[in-house]
Amino acid sequence: MRMVDIIANKRDNKELSKEEIQFFVNGYTNGEIPDYQASALLMAVFFNDMTPDEAANLTMAMVNSGDQIDLSEIDGIKVDKHSTGGVGDTTTLVLAPLVAALDVPVAKMSGRGLGHTGGTIDKLEALKGFHVELSQDDFTKLVNENKVAVIGQSGNLTPADKLLYALRDVTGTVNSIPLIASSIMSKKIAAGADAIVLDVKVGDGAFMKTEEDAVKLAETMVRIGNDVGRRTMAIISSMEEPLGYAVGNANEVKEAIDTLKGEGPEDLTELSLTLASQMAVAGGKAKDLEEAREMLKAVIADGSALEKFKVFVNSQGGDGSLVEHPENLPAAEFHTEVVSEEEGYVEVIDAENIGVAASVLGAGRQTKEDEIDLSVGIMLKKKVGEYVNKGDVIAEIASSTKDVSDAARKIVSSYHLGSEQKQTKLIKKIITA
Amino acid sequence: MRMVDIIANKRDNKELSKEEIQFFVNGYTNGEIPDYQASALLMAVFFNDMTPDEAANLTMAMVNSGDQIDLSEIDGIKVDKHSTGGVGDTTTLVLAPLVAALDVPVAKMSGRGLGHTGGTIDKLEALKGFHVELSQDDFTKLVNENKVAVIGQSGNLTPADKLLYALRDVTGTVNSIPLIASSIMSKKIAAGADAIVLDVKVGDGAFMKTEEDAVKLAETMVRIGNDVGRRTMAIISSMEEPLGYAVGNANEVKEAIDTLKGEGPEDLTELSLTLASQMAVAGGKAKDLEEAREMLKAVIADGSALEKFKVFVNSQGGDGSLVEHPENLPAAEFHTEVVSEEEGYVEVIDAENIGVAASVLGAGRQTKEDEIDLSVGIMLKKKVGEYVNKGDVIAEIASSTKDVSDAARKIVSSYHLGSEQKQTKLIKKIITA
Repeated sequence: MRMVDIIANKRDNKELSKEEIQFFVNGYTNGEIPDYQASALLMAVFFNDMTPDEAANLTMAMVNSGDQIDLSEIDGIKVDKHSTGGVGDTTTLVLAPLVAALDVPVAKMSGRGLGHTGGTIDKLEALKGFHVELSQDDFTKLVNENKVAVIGQSGNLTPADKLLYALRDVTGTVNSIPLIASSIMSKKIAAGADAIVLDVKVGDGAFMKTEEDAVKLAETMVRIGNDVGRRTMAIISSMEEPLGYAVGNANEVKEAIDTLKGEGPEDLTELSLTLASQMAVAGGKAKDLEEAREMLKAVIADGSALEKFKVFVNSQGGDGSLVEHPENLPAAEFHTEVVSEEEGYVEVIDAENIGVAASVLGAGRQTKEDEIDLSVGIMLKKKVGEYVNKGDVIAEIASSTKDVSDAARKIVSSYHLGSEQKQTKLIKKIITA
Repeated sequence: MRMVDIIANKRDNKELSKEEIQFFVNGYTNGEIPDYQASALLMAVFFNDMTPDEAANLTMAMVNSGDQIDLSEIDGIKVDKHSTGGVGDTTTLVLAPLVAALDVPVAKMSGRGLGHTGGTIDKLEALKGFHVELSQDDFTKLVNENKVAVIGQSGNLTPADKLLYALRDVTGTVNSIPLIASSIMSKKIAAGADAIVLDVKVGDGAFMKTEEDAVKLAETMVRIGNDVGRRTMAIISSMEEPLGYAVGNANEVKEAIDTLKGEGPEDLTELSLTLASQMAVAGGKAKDLEEAREMLKAVIADGSALEKFKVFVNSQGGDGSLVEHPENLPAAEFHTEVVSEEEGYVEVIDAENIGVAASVLGAGRQTKEDEIDLSVGIMLKKKVGEYVNKGDVIAEIASSTKDVSDAARKIVSSYHLGSEQKQTKLIKKIITA
């Protein structure tokens, strides 16, 4: 088998065999196939797409290129959730205890954030003392006891994906649906999930700009997951504005607590219930989405979801009292109101730009070495569909420095006002196999 | 300017600017742009093609990446000819003295062959003593005196093309018309030609398999040449069978001599006259193709074309007496007749396969270091349109070893017999600006 023939086959729109894809992934991972042949193949994939079989074979070849996490010691169906990336996306903090309260095991491997705002681990560290440095045994034990635990990334997972992602980034081949889908799915599968619930964001602030592309990505991932024996489903959710009101770390934790109490923002609550319902069904705890939603509403109403969050925080060294007293979470020194310079209905809030503003304040990292300031962030005061008068407060900045003019300018420019009162439909579509 | 943006522009079918193309070619030649970005761009070009301006800019960027031959000391309009590569293509040996006999200066830089059969220099070396190691001054002097001289390749011509060609070869990006066209044209322009006559071969034995592709390649090259100020024209000629009867080195020289005497094979004579007419017009020696053809027929009929060949051979140290006594050219020890195992009209003779058979006998090189045997080769005895009975001699092998079964098998399998008496149209099209 020769790599140049594999490139030519893809270029000529012939379906690559499982063996050809394995030859490429293995050869590239061990350095036998040079970058220049890999990038030519990636560009041919960009133009000619991949069949479902090719995408599934690529995914499994990347899974098999490194370690795989063994969750077999954990009882029940392990359900993982993945979001294609949003701003102010606090759903993981809500979902983990919410689903665990229904006894669906949440065995989550998480990372730190880069850019925009912090990752799930950064946010959890706002709960003083919380840590994710667990042994595999302790992790397993915690999940079996409490149905929820989070561990930091470890092991050499999907090295092929890491190499290919770095190459795609510099060769104009990032925006290929089968390549995006196989990258995401390979990581979830290597992390050991039995079932996967996907949240594909669509809109100006998301990676997928059109619903058509988002649906195609979701369908490709759902097909891959089910083809390789992992029950997979996806929702398409709007990213025409940040989710909820909080963008930062401590303030997002506070918002998650509100949501677990049944007092959270409408959009964050709805998205959390939608995803959690899918996870409950996938985890075998509810027969359909309607039943799941009723069960979830019940554990919010009776306080058991919030209680689960407290148990979870305590179990990993965190200060569980903060769950009842979020006013004691890290607080910023300065608070500045941002006012609108125009008037009109909020039509779009550029979520990516809001994320950048939060990052400028110190809520996110530019490089892996940067320290995050957990106390800073942005609270939106107006959302899409609301009317704003000139001089109205549209957001509040929490910061560690007095001068926040840079972030304020970014926030103002993120609000697009117009004459139309738009209703954002949050959940655009649900895709199952 | 960033290479990743240039790749993305081409990927998204935006026309690359002259500056972007220069940035790429210069950066790649000096090693600042890595292979993996170059190959991604080449694959994007494969899919999205290039506009005429892009192809012209790529050509000139490659010309400017290295040395250029200065032919300004040579009087008159220097016309060069290029063939996209055929088997048994003896036209250069015929054209050089034929056109020089009309006082069109032929200042030819030539190379040795790789694969199939020898190159022009290899063939000329069958004329004992002939050499191409000339100084630039001697070369200029010879062309001014005799109107014809051949020099070996020297200088660092089009290094960008050499690098890109090597990369295309291993990344499935050879078969792109603008890349083929700019590669050919950059070499001709760097070699100093004022005008260029192109012979684009089409057919199973040629690089271009369909007339559509051949026309597109020819049009692209003609457009490039004229866009950059070199008068360029092209013919599309059939490669449904080898040109003439001889495939080898000494036997092709003999065939060229026959043709210069007016006693050559019909197809070789016709192609030579067609190309030479274009060269005479481009060189300003005839007002149109008809007048040129009459002048050329005259220099064949009165012996001055053959005489020019003798002068040319003598001027570069060769034994000119061989032109009058080609029976003294290197002769092979063994001669073996190849007979047909079937009957029918010859519909196609796979030229590439015949070339491989000649190479197996020692007429061509597999690697640059191989020695060529100038005496061996193949003489076809039947051409397309002729009827062959079982047992008829279809070819004769001249060899240095007794066992020629391998070459004979290849020759037999190259002849495709059928029930239809096909007439090959040799000159399919003429393309001018």
